[in-house]
Amino acid sequence: MKQATVSIIMGSTSDFPIMKEAVDFLNEMEISCSYSALSAHRTPELVIDYATKARENGTKVIIAGAGGAAHLPGIIAACTSIPVIGVPVKSSNSVDGWDSILSILQMPSGVPVATVALNGARNAAILATQILAVNDEVIYQKLTAFKASMKKKVTDANVRLQNQ
Amino acid sequence: MKQATVSIIMGSTSDFPIMKEAVDFLNEMEISCSYSALSAHRTPELVIDYATKARENGTKVIIAGAGGAAHLPGIIAACTSIPVIGVPVKSSNSVDGWDSILSILQMPSGVPVATVALNGARNAAILATQILAVNDEVIYQKLTAFKASMKKKVTDANVRLQNQ
Amino acid sequence: MKQATVSIIMGSTSDFPIMKEAVDFLNEMEISCSYSALSAHRTPELVIDYATKARENGTKVIIAGAGGAAHLPGIIAACTSIPVIGVPVKSSNSVDGWDSILSILQMPSGVPVATVALNGARNAAILATQILAVNDEVIYQKLTAFKASMKKKVTDANVRLQNQ
Amino acid sequence: MKQATVSIIMGSTSDFPIMKEAVDFLNEMEISCSYSALSAHRTPELVIDYATKARENGTKVIIAGAGGAAHLPGIIAACTSIPVIGVPVKSSNSVDGWDSILSILQMPSGVPVATVALNGARNAAILATQILAVNDEVIYQKLTAFKASMKKKVTDANVRLQNQ
Amino acid sequence: MKQATVSIIMGSTSDFPIMKEAVDFLNEMEISCSYSALSAHRTPELVIDYATKARENGTKVIIAGAGGAAHLPGIIAACTSIPVIGVPVKSSNSVDGWDSILSILQMPSGVPVATVALNGARNAAILATQILAVNDEVIYQKLTAFKASMKKKVTDANVRLQNQ
Amino acid sequence: MKQATVSIIMGSTSDFPIMKEAVDFLNEMEISCSYSALSAHRTPELVIDYATKARENGTKVIIAGAGGAAHLPGIIAACTSIPVIGVPVKSSNSVDGWDSILSILQMPSGVPVATVALNGARNAAILATQILAVNDEVIYQKLTAFKASMKKKVTDANVRLQNQ
Amino acid sequence: MKQATVSIIMGSTSDFPIMKEAVDFLNEMEISCSYSALSAHRTPELVIDYATKARENGTKVIIAGAGGAAHLPGIIAACTSIPVIGVPVKSSNSVDGWDSILSILQMPSGVPVATVALNGARNAAILATQILAVNDEVIYQKLTAFKASMKKKVTDANVRLQNQ
Amino acid sequence: MKQATVSIIMGSTSDFPIMKEAVDFLNEMEISCSYSALSAHRTPELVIDYATKARENGTKVIIAGAGGAAHLPGIIAACTSIPVIGVPVKSSNSVDGWDSILSILQMPSGVPVATVALNGARNAAILATQILAVNDEVIYQKLTAFKASMKKKVTDANVRLQNQ
Repeated sequence: MKQATVSIIMGSTSDFPIMKEAVDFLNEMEISCSYSALSAHRTPELVIDYATKARENGTKVIIAGAGGAAHLPGIIAACTSIPVIGVPVKSSNSVDGWDSILSILQMPSGVPVATVALNGARNAAILATQILAVNDEVIYQKLTAFKASMKKKVTDANVRLQNQ
Repeated sequence: MKQATVSIIMGSTSDFPIMKEAVDFLNEMEISCSYSALSAHRTPELVIDYATKARENGTKVIIAGAGGAAHLPGIIAACTSIPVIGVPVKSSNSVDGWDSILSILQMPSGVPVATVALNGARNAAILATQILAVNDEVIYQKLTAFKASMKKKVTDANVRLQNQ
Repeated sequence: MKQATVSIIMGSTSDFPIMKEAVDFLNEMEISCSYSALSAHRTPELVIDYATKARENGTKVIIAGAGGAAHLPGIIAACTSIPVIGVPVKSSNSVDGWDSILSILQMPSGVPVATVALNGARNAAILATQILAVNDEVIYQKLTAFKASMKKKVTDANVRLQNQ
Repeated sequence: MKQATVSIIMGSTSDFPIMKEAVDFLNEMEISCSYSALSAHRTPELVIDYATKARENGTKVIIAGAGGAAHLPGIIAACTSIPVIGVPVKSSNSVDGWDSILSILQMPSGVPVATVALNGARNAAILATQILAVNDEVIYQKLTAFKASMKKKVTDANVRLQNQ
Repeated sequence: MKQATVSIIMGSTSDFPIMKEAVDFLNEMEISCSYSALSAHRTPELVIDYATKARENGTKVIIAGAGGAAHLPGIIAACTSIPVIGVPVKSSNSVDGWDSILSILQMPSGVPVATVALNGARNAAILATQILAVNDEVIYQKLTAFKASMKKKVTDANVRLQNQ
Repeated sequence: MKQATVSIIMGSTSDFPIMKEAVDFLNEMEISCSYSALSAHRTPELVIDYATKARENGTKVIIAGAGGAAHLPGIIAACTSIPVIGVPVKSSNSVDGWDSILSILQMPSGVPVATVALNGARNAAILATQILAVNDEVIYQKLTAFKASMKKKVTDANVRLQNQ
Repeated sequence: MKQATVSIIMGSTSDFPIMKEAVDFLNEMEISCSYSALSAHRTPELVIDYATKARENGTKVIIAGAGGAAHLPGIIAACTSIPVIGVPVKSSNSVDGWDSILSILQMPSGVPVATVALNGARNAAILATQILAVNDEVIYQKLTAFKASMKKKVTDANVRLQNQ
Repeated sequence: MKQATVSIIMGSTSDFPIMKEAVDFLNEMEISCSYSALSAHRTPELVIDYATKARENGTKVIIAGAGGAAHLPGIIAACTSIPVIGVPVKSSNSVDGWDSILSILQMPSGVPVATVALNGARNAAILATQILAVNDEVIYQKLTAFKASMKKKVTDANVRLQNQ
């Protein structure tokens, strides 16, 4: 696994269309990231090895996305003290996303996962950026600019709506 | 961990009042069992070590009970090919048991957990006994006797109800 | 009903596209299986007759799939001590699959059904295989090989994802 | 089973505190009723025998109450063409009553169960009375009087509330 | 409204594709039926007038189908002592059918609605037929024949499945 | 019914402990209000009469609270064009309040009910006051003062919390 | 923002296809309305400024629609004493609309939002009209005519259904 | 507001028994924290002022807990780029906690809230500590020690369980 500040992991390559939004945002922010698809249930040793070595590999934040009985974020959080952001993915055969949400969110005391909205990979990347910005003024300025650009997009769209 | 045919594991000692029903049934059936409380999230290596060595330790069936984001049964199932029976436990701060149910039941293709009802530890033990009975006529006869005794209890209670 | 080690039953022929995944997996494992479509509600005597005679017919594990108010697995479990694996099927007019899940999972004390995920027929077959492997080293080796092949598929797909 | 116009059956004697409300209403209406506690899962043959012979035993309407994976009303409906009224009971370890509701309500095409509200045993008895009243003017008059008395109770209570 | 033994009412003409299944079954059974689309909320007086006069108009059973906050069956049940069968319809903008189910099923004590499955109009008609059969041997024989034909359809389909 | 600007109606006197909070707030605001307990299902004519005459009786806003299959607010809204505010009440035997919420909220197009939170009778009264304030500067000033007092309560409590 | 009696605000321009139904109804009623798309989360200051100045800008009722964690109606209600009508919008990535419903409906004591059905923008506009009609006989007459026209549509459609 | 590294805010002083667990953990970790109770709906300007100035006040992470339509974490996240951790609180009149969970979790793209389990204030504090540890080796070592102590507690409790 190549070294990167934010490491994105997903339970299956079928989650990539969702999780790619996290990659894209981090690229926009010029924050190095890597991504991989490993399964807590099909490749548990690889996942544990990944999590255990994450900090020594230079990873500062982990983003983990999974669907159904989504154990990936929780198992990673069990094996590291790096912040783990969980993305519930609404996969096929999921029970409308409720399984993904609850099995990521409802972690027991002692082992938190920072959960974002269903399919919220982009928000996971923004949150990772906010975490990095805690001690990095340059990144914080980028986030401030990003917030301003969001605001501008909303107000521009509103003007177009008024003139429709 | 002492050798036993059925190995019961729970995510927390606070699950023991529920899980004890499994111990009791197996004792009734004279099937050797052991039990322990280990957490998928607080002691992941111990759980994985437990699961990986279960078969060589003589375990034939595993019963795993947990509440909330209940990853214990799934992670064990990821590390062994022994049948794993999952018991969703309705713990405090659980979202009415839905989190436990969905995070045990909705396992991805390739790694099943045999899920029983919320707090259904006794049924988990019965299911374990049924699994052992597949190739054991003596145990099968015990199950048949158990079924007959259940039936008698129901019909006796019904007679009392009629005469109330 | 022809003799088979694993007997698959479904509530309607419309469940066959889902349940066929169980047939396919058992074929891969070279475990003999039969399948039939009988309804707990439209043909109750046939279902009860089927369940009652299953063990003498040589069946070792039953897989039962049904949708809506899915009583098929439970009624079969009521009539035999063979392990019954239940597959909740998300049929049309189901309430998003919740009805199938809850009416299979929430069996009363004394009569368990080993429930797998919504539409999880393949996992039901894997679980049946695990049950047979309890006393069959050959099948256990096949499962071990299957687990290894799953792992390889995941790692191969991950390599392709990295090189995308 | 003694002959009665309305036959009440429940899955467990623990359902009797709820189901007794049906007995009481039928007694008020002077409609003969019997009650028994038999389990679809613990005593399936007794339940099927009960249902199959209900009409020849003189039963005109069946009320069946059960909790959890509540298969009792559905299995009875499978074995008779007498109207079956289902009462979902919120038992302990039920998933907040959802399991009882959905496994009684969501019957497949061909085999209806007339479902009433959670714990609605009294309404089940009223519905049974309405069914008998279809061809019985005396019973219909009793229902009309009952409706009038309900109305009076409401208006009397309202007067008391105003004067509080 | 023309005189008919079973009167079908629905909250909107958009419910007709669902409710037509009830008409068809009653036609098969040669039971006279009428149908209309009136809204509890848009035409409350017409609905109340309809319900109040139903018995004098010769109606023996009412089937009422509606979606969303489905008050139609309950309001009709409030105005007559004829049995009212409620069909929850999964309309557009419904919250996945839960609103229709709960607002039909959860009637207060004193005013039952015999609720069938989501979109279960055909089962509503079968239930109406069962109610009429309570005192009509000819209709009961038709139901018996219908049950036999269902059974034959299931067993025929099963034979085809086996030979696939 | 005595004349009052805001008329509060509830489905049962058992709802009064909840609905009294609305009475209390309106008293605080010195807005005249009346209250009564009438049932959409047990006294439909009285409810319809109440709703139909509400405007001519001087009522400007109606607050209607009910539990379970809560049809009261919707039926009233069907019979008047006065704004109707619905309060879902979590009654015993309610399915955790979901039935009350959905059967009040999900009204069909054409007949809105202004729904507030579960057991939110006080908010219903505040909303009624806001509606009256649309054309009444005195009431608007009272609301402004109320908002200021709420703010003061929050900030005072916060000071106490800090000093704890 | 141009002056208007009813001011419609939505969380995103993607909500406009739903919210346009409110605009259309108000146009039918000849009530002046404005609409805009501003986000409680992306443009909080603009939303607060909008809400704070609404009354002095001549707004009498606000309709606010939003999806997901829909905070827009609640934040506006926090900043004004004008009645705020909330429209839960079922957006993509919403958890089946439950998130929108609950985050608009379940406002704390002191700050109500008048919530209408999922995607119920037309009902929001009708409710706004009803609020304006409290002190405006002309608008009340329009609502009466609207109710009559709805009734006629239903009865006409019913005639067509009968003659189908 | 006094300067602190982690700032805890809750929607009501009634949330303090839950939120105090966050204070306690941060005290254990010797991380400075402040806490306050401000309402997004009753004191919106104070909340916005708090959020806007948080970074200049030296706050590095915000923990926000609220129940019902829990807008507090989201509104704060709208006004700052500091990481905001949301704690859904199961308050009285909450719809079983679902409202709190969904209105915190389902934030729109652009404005994430790092959501933890229902009532998971302690996990919120652990997550805040993990975020601070990204660039602070001392804190990371404390977390590592904390993980080790959790593990020891689990294994000690397990020994006691075995010897029971």
